[in-house]
Amino acid sequence: MILPEPLEILIEELNKLPSIGRKTAQRLALHLLKSQKEDISNLVNSLISMRDNIKICSKCFNVSVDDECEICKSPKRDNSVICVVEEVSDVIAIEKTNEFNGLYHVLGGVLSPLSGKDAASLKIDELVKRVSNSNIKEIILALNPDTEGESTALYLAKILKRFNIKITRIARGLPIGGDIEFADEATIGRAVLGRIILE
Amino acid sequence: MILPEPLEILIEELNKLPSIGRKTAQRLALHLLKSQKEDISNLVNSLISMRDNIKICSKCFNVSVDDECEICKSPKRDNSVICVVEEVSDVIAIEKTNEFNGLYHVLGGVLSPLSGKDAASLKIDELVKRVSNSNIKEIILALNPDTEGESTALYLAKILKRFNIKITRIARGLPIGGDIEFADEATIGRAVLGRIILE
Repeated sequence: MILPEPLEILIEELNKLPSIGRKTAQRLALHLLKSQKEDISNLVNSLISMRDNIKICSKCFNVSVDDECEICKSPKRDNSVICVVEEVSDVIAIEKTNEFNGLYHVLGGVLSPLSGKDAASLKIDELVKRVSNSNIKEIILALNPDTEGESTALYLAKILKRFNIKITRIARGLPIGGDIEFADEATIGRAVLGRIILE
Repeated sequence: MILPEPLEILIEELNKLPSIGRKTAQRLALHLLKSQKEDISNLVNSLISMRDNIKICSKCFNVSVDDECEICKSPKRDNSVICVVEEVSDVIAIEKTNEFNGLYHVLGGVLSPLSGKDAASLKIDELVKRVSNSNIKEIILALNPDTEGESTALYLAKILKRFNIKITRIARGLPIGGDIEFADEATIGRAVLGRIILE
């Protein structure tokens, strides 16, 4: 059976989303088909509202409804510390901890020659400009602890060296609730090297 | 951080879809945010087109753009055989096999007292009407081989008995590519009972 065209097109569109395969797309489309028309309209309206109202903050490249995001605008935040992250989802994850009160800078990825991401395609120039134009005391590099994240951190550290500010990297070690016995050697090694003095 | 409202609402809407949890919804929303506006518009338009153009076939309750679906309208189909299935997704699955050339009847579920599905909420009356009004020779019950599917099949067989037509059920047995050693006892038992004569 060739599916009715509107259904087929919807399945194709859903299939384009990350981690949505053809079977899942079909299941979602058939679920929507059985839903109330009102529910579909709600989804449609939320997509349109997101498309038309969400901007990228001109300062830190986080999501925002205005030109500057809530975090950049807030008078309560410490604007002498910038936490550099890969994606907006990392901002959300760090904000959830309530452990950080500074500003962010979303790079939009990490250096990755294999997938064609070079320094020019990331917001590195913008970061350098922010550091040179305002009174920044510390840059925290909160990039993923993988090869690309590590090399991007080293690259940024080298570039930012000339400003004579504190450059830090978030700690590597055992995750909370983790078990030494089952952790991999690299993680245990980093945890030992990065030990902190208690008394 | 409280997310910008349009983004938060979109995440909530996506989260309502089956098998899309909060984290996946957030990932999909951030992916859409990074997409071209045109891609979002394509998704929006496909949802609207599906909502406004897809109907349910008045005869077999399959998906359709017209009052009657492509299968019911086709002059090439054998309209003396009706295959009874649970959902539209089962029609798609059986059509893909190219092994069936009759008509369908989508019940819209199976009898399930626990989830409040009784005979009146399924398209059983409509099936009985179809059988009594047209020249049907065989009803194939293609319901899932679980408790609810089996009991619905028995219920339908009992109701349709008075029409003196052939009532069949799709075969249970070992799946193609399966291994006798690793199949469960119930499946092997059914495969032995349902054995067919080769010579």
